[in-house]
Amino acid sequence: MNLPASSSPEQVFDWLDAAAEKRAAAGLTRRLRPRGASSTELDLAGNDYLGLARDKRVAGAAAAAALRWGAGATGSRLDTGSTEVHTELEYELARFCGAQAALVFSSGFTANLGAVTALSGAESAIVSDKHIHTSLIEGCRLSRTDVAAISHCDPAAIKHALATRRKPRALVVTDSVFSVEGDLAPLPELSQVCREHGAALLVDDAHGFGVLGDGGRGAVHAAGLAGEPDVVTTISLSKALGAQGGAVLGPRRVIRHLVDTARSFVFDTGLAPASAAAALAALGVLKSEPDLPEKVLTNAVALSAQLRAAGFRVSNPEAAVISVQAPSAESAVEWADRCAEQGVRVGCFRPPSVPDGISRLRLTVRADLTESDVDTAVKVISESAPAGAAS
Amino acid sequence: MNLPASSSPEQVFDWLDAAAEKRAAAGLTRRLRPRGASSTELDLAGNDYLGLARDKRVAGAAAAAALRWGAGATGSRLDTGSTEVHTELEYELARFCGAQAALVFSSGFTANLGAVTALSGAESAIVSDKHIHTSLIEGCRLSRTDVAAISHCDPAAIKHALATRRKPRALVVTDSVFSVEGDLAPLPELSQVCREHGAALLVDDAHGFGVLGDGGRGAVHAAGLAGEPDVVTTISLSKALGAQGGAVLGPRRVIRHLVDTARSFVFDTGLAPASAAAALAALGVLKSEPDLPEKVLTNAVALSAQLRAAGFRVSNPEAAVISVQAPSAESAVEWADRCAEQGVRVGCFRPPSVPDGISRLRLTVRADLTESDVDTAVKVISESAPAGAAS
Repeated sequence: MNLPASSSPEQVFDWLDAAAEKRAAAGLTRRLRPRGASSTELDLAGNDYLGLARDKRVAGAAAAAALRWGAGATGSRLDTGSTEVHTELEYELARFCGAQAALVFSSGFTANLGAVTALSGAESAIVSDKHIHTSLIEGCRLSRTDVAAISHCDPAAIKHALATRRKPRALVVTDSVFSVEGDLAPLPELSQVCREHGAALLVDDAHGFGVLGDGGRGAVHAAGLAGEPDVVTTISLSKALGAQGGAVLGPRRVIRHLVDTARSFVFDTGLAPASAAAALAALGVLKSEPDLPEKVLTNAVALSAQLRAAGFRVSNPEAAVISVQAPSAESAVEWADRCAEQGVRVGCFRPPSVPDGISRLRLTVRADLTESDVDTAVKVISESAPAGAAS
Repeated sequence: MNLPASSSPEQVFDWLDAAAEKRAAAGLTRRLRPRGASSTELDLAGNDYLGLARDKRVAGAAAAAALRWGAGATGSRLDTGSTEVHTELEYELARFCGAQAALVFSSGFTANLGAVTALSGAESAIVSDKHIHTSLIEGCRLSRTDVAAISHCDPAAIKHALATRRKPRALVVTDSVFSVEGDLAPLPELSQVCREHGAALLVDDAHGFGVLGDGGRGAVHAAGLAGEPDVVTTISLSKALGAQGGAVLGPRRVIRHLVDTARSFVFDTGLAPASAAAALAALGVLKSEPDLPEKVLTNAVALSAQLRAAGFRVSNPEAAVISVQAPSAESAVEWADRCAEQGVRVGCFRPPSVPDGISRLRLTVRADLTESDVDTAVKVISESAPAGAAS
């Protein structure tokens, strides 16, 4: 079945062109659109939910840390890549969220890979919501054990999968706020089901932390599960905290286990000190301004209500994420492009980035959006809409 | 096989304690040792090969970018996470290394995951050197296709695996400089074998880029393979460039394919602008000081020669990495600890982080080590050595 030995080196990647044409025909080509530093776009696409990425206290902390510690961590967290900033950030994250301990990774993606793989293994079944984030799915695939991806937000089906598993242990994996539709997982029910079946619960709170719960302590805290001995949470440092990186929060023995065994921790360069310091400063802002998260929800409700009134198929925002359905992948792209031309940047999610096959605009709100921003967004999105988007 | 329903939440992670005891008994417990900003340790453990992480031009660029762009990228590279800094860095990396195009990831780990998975697939066999970096191994596992891990640095065996594969396409995966032992892959021979069998070649040049080749252009460039249509290279921004992140270099159509399909690119927050700016500034330093890489090799040869003269089992350094064998995992840890007590930080690699099961000190050198640093290192390592380490 080999390619003929006479094939030339130029032909080796010819298959990529065929794949690209197929994606183009399906409207699934993606394009990088780098932004300038002084862009005046209204941003409804990023995950900087509290508007802290450019906050002077946060950006200033990053700058100061770069000068003090250097531009990079210089090695794995296990070698030279742990600084006192990492340690302080881990201590403060754990304390804020009510967990025994925390461990900082270079991204939320690698945090999820590490948590899923290190906490499962051959003796453990994994039972997940089928809409979990890609990084969790990759973690499940790497675990090389039985994985059951269960219908969305369905504790009864999870319970059944746990009851009929063929492994002694089990790990239930879910997002708290699902990243495409913005809906919430039923965390109390999932925890109940886990406890009935001796399973651990792993929650990716990337879109809940900083937005939901008392003072932004996240969806796991809001569900009364913070500090529980059978619950592990992953969070992002690049969304509400406006920096880069991810972290795992949980029982001390879980964190120790990750230090020893999580391959995406052990074999990755540590997070840059500047990013760790920025996350730490942002956490300080969040603590000093506990009403900030509520503004996110207020803005999300306002924007979704106005879009729904304009006739669009809009999700009910439970956090910062709003989904607006589009008639097709092509029309979603054109819709987003027209919004951008008018100065409003919106997210455009298409297959395979959507779990339900529905293309949509994905809007995110920030705490610092004004009423006028919301009005502008509704006006531009409405005027740019393709035929069939509004009913 | 389930745990009894009556098990308490406290028991769910009891298995972690058993696993921890087992690791402790085998001397495989790991410990984070955060460093202070004003540490005076002699660092022989990090990967800051050119000594640029704390260079004022590099750290200053990181600080300026944090203030200008904010602390984080705020979203996926496909949404808000691409800035002009990312674009400029990609352009300059590609130009410097002689590739058509480049794509920046948030880490070398995610760059490797993305490159391996996006360039293989169900129609492609993967044939790898069995000593490749963990991130490449994880990429192979995620590819869900036939993977053959071949004996170390063995082009004939790779050739055989390619000739007998059951898939039409093939991807050969190797490190350029292997991260534990520091030895070089036979890149020209591997490329030859790939061409005889219509296979693509993916080289992780994390430890070669900035150290080997003309002006630090890396091992792929040194092998005459830069810009070849069937070769893809991954590099690290957190080693020779002293920053954070990773990049894939290759034909333009490969980069376009990654933008559309590499899950660790699409679903990850973009690299912080400060880290991208730091890498860009470090690349500028490297271009203006083309003799910097040679100093790394000079220092590696000097250190290894003196350690060998002292009777240790030392690898022949081909780049910045030197391996010094230890009699056991426990003695390696104690050896490294005694070095640290005397102000010399060395790496300590044990199973499962070593492909050959041999525990060792892993030393790295930097361009800015002085003769006196090398003398100090040899003295401390010799005086701290466990029985049986020197012959």
